[in-house]
Amino acid sequence: MSGYAENEIQKLSQDELKNLLKKVRGELAVKQQVIKEKNLPVIVLVEGWGASGKGTLISYLIRDLDPRFFQVIPVKPPTKEEKRKPFLCRHMENIPEAGKFVFLDSGWMEETVFDMVDGRFSDDELKTRLHDINIFERQLVDNGYLVLKIFVDVSKKIQKERIDNLLSDKDTSWRVSKRDLDEIKHRSKYEKAFSEFIGATNTKKAPWHVIDGSKKQLAELQVYHLLVNGMDNAIKHKDEPVEIPDNVFPLVTMPKLCDVPLDVSLTKEVYKAELKKAQNKLKKLHNKIYRMGVPVIIAYEGWDAAGKGGNIKRLTSALDARGFAVNPIASPDVHEKNRHYLWRFWTRLPKTGHIAIFDRTWYGRVMVERLEGFCSENDWKRAYNEINEFEKNLSDWGAVIVKFWVHIDKDTQLSRFKERESTPEKQWKITDEDWRNREKWDDYEIAVNEMIEKTSTTFAPWHIIQSNDKLYARIQAINTVIDAIEAKLKVLKK
Amino acid sequence: MSGYAENEIQKLSQDELKNLLKKVRGELAVKQQVIKEKNLPVIVLVEGWGASGKGTLISYLIRDLDPRFFQVIPVKPPTKEEKRKPFLCRHMENIPEAGKFVFLDSGWMEETVFDMVDGRFSDDELKTRLHDINIFERQLVDNGYLVLKIFVDVSKKIQKERIDNLLSDKDTSWRVSKRDLDEIKHRSKYEKAFSEFIGATNTKKAPWHVIDGSKKQLAELQVYHLLVNGMDNAIKHKDEPVEIPDNVFPLVTMPKLCDVPLDVSLTKEVYKAELKKAQNKLKKLHNKIYRMGVPVIIAYEGWDAAGKGGNIKRLTSALDARGFAVNPIASPDVHEKNRHYLWRFWTRLPKTGHIAIFDRTWYGRVMVERLEGFCSENDWKRAYNEINEFEKNLSDWGAVIVKFWVHIDKDTQLSRFKERESTPEKQWKITDEDWRNREKWDDYEIAVNEMIEKTSTTFAPWHIIQSNDKLYARIQAINTVIDAIEAKLKVLKK
Repeated sequence: MSGYAENEIQKLSQDELKNLLKKVRGELAVKQQVIKEKNLPVIVLVEGWGASGKGTLISYLIRDLDPRFFQVIPVKPPTKEEKRKPFLCRHMENIPEAGKFVFLDSGWMEETVFDMVDGRFSDDELKTRLHDINIFERQLVDNGYLVLKIFVDVSKKIQKERIDNLLSDKDTSWRVSKRDLDEIKHRSKYEKAFSEFIGATNTKKAPWHVIDGSKKQLAELQVYHLLVNGMDNAIKHKDEPVEIPDNVFPLVTMPKLCDVPLDVSLTKEVYKAELKKAQNKLKKLHNKIYRMGVPVIIAYEGWDAAGKGGNIKRLTSALDARGFAVNPIASPDVHEKNRHYLWRFWTRLPKTGHIAIFDRTWYGRVMVERLEGFCSENDWKRAYNEINEFEKNLSDWGAVIVKFWVHIDKDTQLSRFKERESTPEKQWKITDEDWRNREKWDDYEIAVNEMIEKTSTTFAPWHIIQSNDKLYARIQAINTVIDAIEAKLKVLKK
Repeated sequence: MSGYAENEIQKLSQDELKNLLKKVRGELAVKQQVIKEKNLPVIVLVEGWGASGKGTLISYLIRDLDPRFFQVIPVKPPTKEEKRKPFLCRHMENIPEAGKFVFLDSGWMEETVFDMVDGRFSDDELKTRLHDINIFERQLVDNGYLVLKIFVDVSKKIQKERIDNLLSDKDTSWRVSKRDLDEIKHRSKYEKAFSEFIGATNTKKAPWHVIDGSKKQLAELQVYHLLVNGMDNAIKHKDEPVEIPDNVFPLVTMPKLCDVPLDVSLTKEVYKAELKKAQNKLKKLHNKIYRMGVPVIIAYEGWDAAGKGGNIKRLTSALDARGFAVNPIASPDVHEKNRHYLWRFWTRLPKTGHIAIFDRTWYGRVMVERLEGFCSENDWKRAYNEINEFEKNLSDWGAVIVKFWVHIDKDTQLSRFKERESTPEKQWKITDEDWRNREKWDDYEIAVNEMIEKTSTTFAPWHIIQSNDKLYARIQAINTVIDAIEAKLKVLKK
């Protein structure tokens, strides 16, 4: 816990305090230009007691900021729809673009503490939740975010006074929630939960700052200082490499690509019979997972012209169109590039009971972004762990995760490229970029082998699809999905 | 109502039908490449009775489509949050990008018909709703969308059989909703509402196609034909100019920019006193509109360096940070440019009780896009009416709409540009583009005058802010907002 030398401020006269406030407010307004230039994204999480003045504090803080470069988000309890996504999903959605501020009027702390107080967690669930939050915040900081966490503390007496005051006027009484009243009634229960949360999530990279909310100007002054210092610090250390942790996840041993046999095939007759059988099975399973609320995430990666598109189509044509979505992933749009690289995947996750198919995925980070230099070496080396953390989170949430590397050999790719070039209705499928990528085959193979080795966790292993024969590959993929779903349903039945 | 020559198909043998289906399915798959090349966006709205086979029909239709180029959206009843936005908002959100399909499993028809059956409309409200839907569809078509509207009809007998069948298996019984059962029970009430809706929204540009859902293959075949013909037709007429309707909205007479006096100013003392008074008033009003659920939309346009930013800041610093958002509007991102030009504004509307401030707006269409040739002449000439329709919709919804043209003269702009260039912390505010725009001042003045003349409706008039003196301008703007909100509250109290 850090902050401003409070003793000294306490001694200031009202006028001195006013001048000091004006000064730091001006400093922040200037600093605002710097974060824009340096592309620093800033998250200010303001948590605290009901009626502690969180909203007022934020209103003060933004007073001299350019409204084009910040957003204030009042975070409400999750809706029914939001509850059908992983807990962190809606919080991840709120993160700012590089060069902008987001002020959150409560967030993942309040949501979690209320669940704690309401007794909605088992011990294990709470442990997982707190762990996930620490990972979330650490990933943000490691990816260049300044995460400033403020807890506005007020005594029970002051909280009660303020609530009574709000209740006395019909234009403000709607601001008082049932929860606010409950906090007063069961103060010690909430106190315990708030401290447990703060204790468990007070990390070096994203420490808590507990601010006394009883004197609003002092609180404001402290937060200004925290913000200005935090920004200075973040800018200073912006491009420093981050320590890359050792792997902590259970891994499955995988073969190297060159050791995967590709001389497997199916006759057209066998293929047709197998496909029909598998599609019927998958169709039934789709109903089951919907009913049981199991989310399914299917990730496709593979060589250009390996047959991903046709493979996906055989999968989706067995599915009820209302229960799945295919997300084609191209290079990120501007508003995506300006955020954590996993943001555009967090925001495309399926609801419980639905299937999301990704045609190319978050693994772009350790393939194309690595090889084309779109991110730093430290970025992609760190990404293996970050991605494993991401998938662990999804797996803990209950998702079935199936990851495909659709594999062909270099000769097969060449003949498919040539076929595309000579077939009018396939020409759109082949671009100069495909040829350029082909030249880097060997580099890609190194990257893919490393990726498969480091991210084949027991909860989200890679499956190498043998796709020199597309028919074989389609049956292999669809059966892999069936097996994964059946395994999950079996566990759930126990 | 159009379709396929049904008599002829009825006579086909099962094998002939199968071959025909295969053929048209192939045609659609090929056509899919064409819509991508021609950048045609296609909306297929599938409405109909519960258990009429809408979902199955969509699943068939997409079977041979490339999953990267379509999306199936099952539209559910609106959530509480969605109900705090205009009715069309969530439907507008679902429209596809150019070159892609969206298949909607029910949409604005079902939502409206259920409201009709449940008696949630007064006569006037229903009339407005149906009118809004016609405008919505017409705007989509005029802006290059193919809107294909299918109603899948089945007899009461077949509907009941299918529902009983679904109910008999626990893996499918969840598909049957209370509403489905109600449709059977009160068949004639629903029949009446469905036909009234179809009758009122069956337009030349977006006609209804009623399909017999009792024979699935025949239904599928008909829709394929509708789709293929619809796409051919849309591509053929893609770049033809659209007829521009006469103005139908009540207009306020506005002065030309050159007739607006700019020699008004305030002393610093008067400004400070006035600002304090106005901000206090606005603060109280913000509580009131929140409580009464009134949405407020404030649109800022104006010359470069007219002082929009500072003006907005004085407004927002009076507001509770949790109840407003400032939307800075720059040139559209790729996913925005690929949709109806109002899409990115529809998706940024405030909830009831909230304030949305737009720093630059949808009027870009008739200013920068007109002058830089980013849209066709027909596009921007049509936009006056489209924008008036948009704002009328928001006004009918209950929104307060305040539109500002922040006005300065050419000399004032020059001296502010120069000041920006010579002040280090303001240099980021001035770019080459600003200088280029300045060269086109006269063209802009013509466009702005035309815009103000044609879009100053009684429900959303322009306010010209005299901003040679920024202090005067700020007080003028904030008081205009206060007046508009007070006028609205007065009407609501009656």
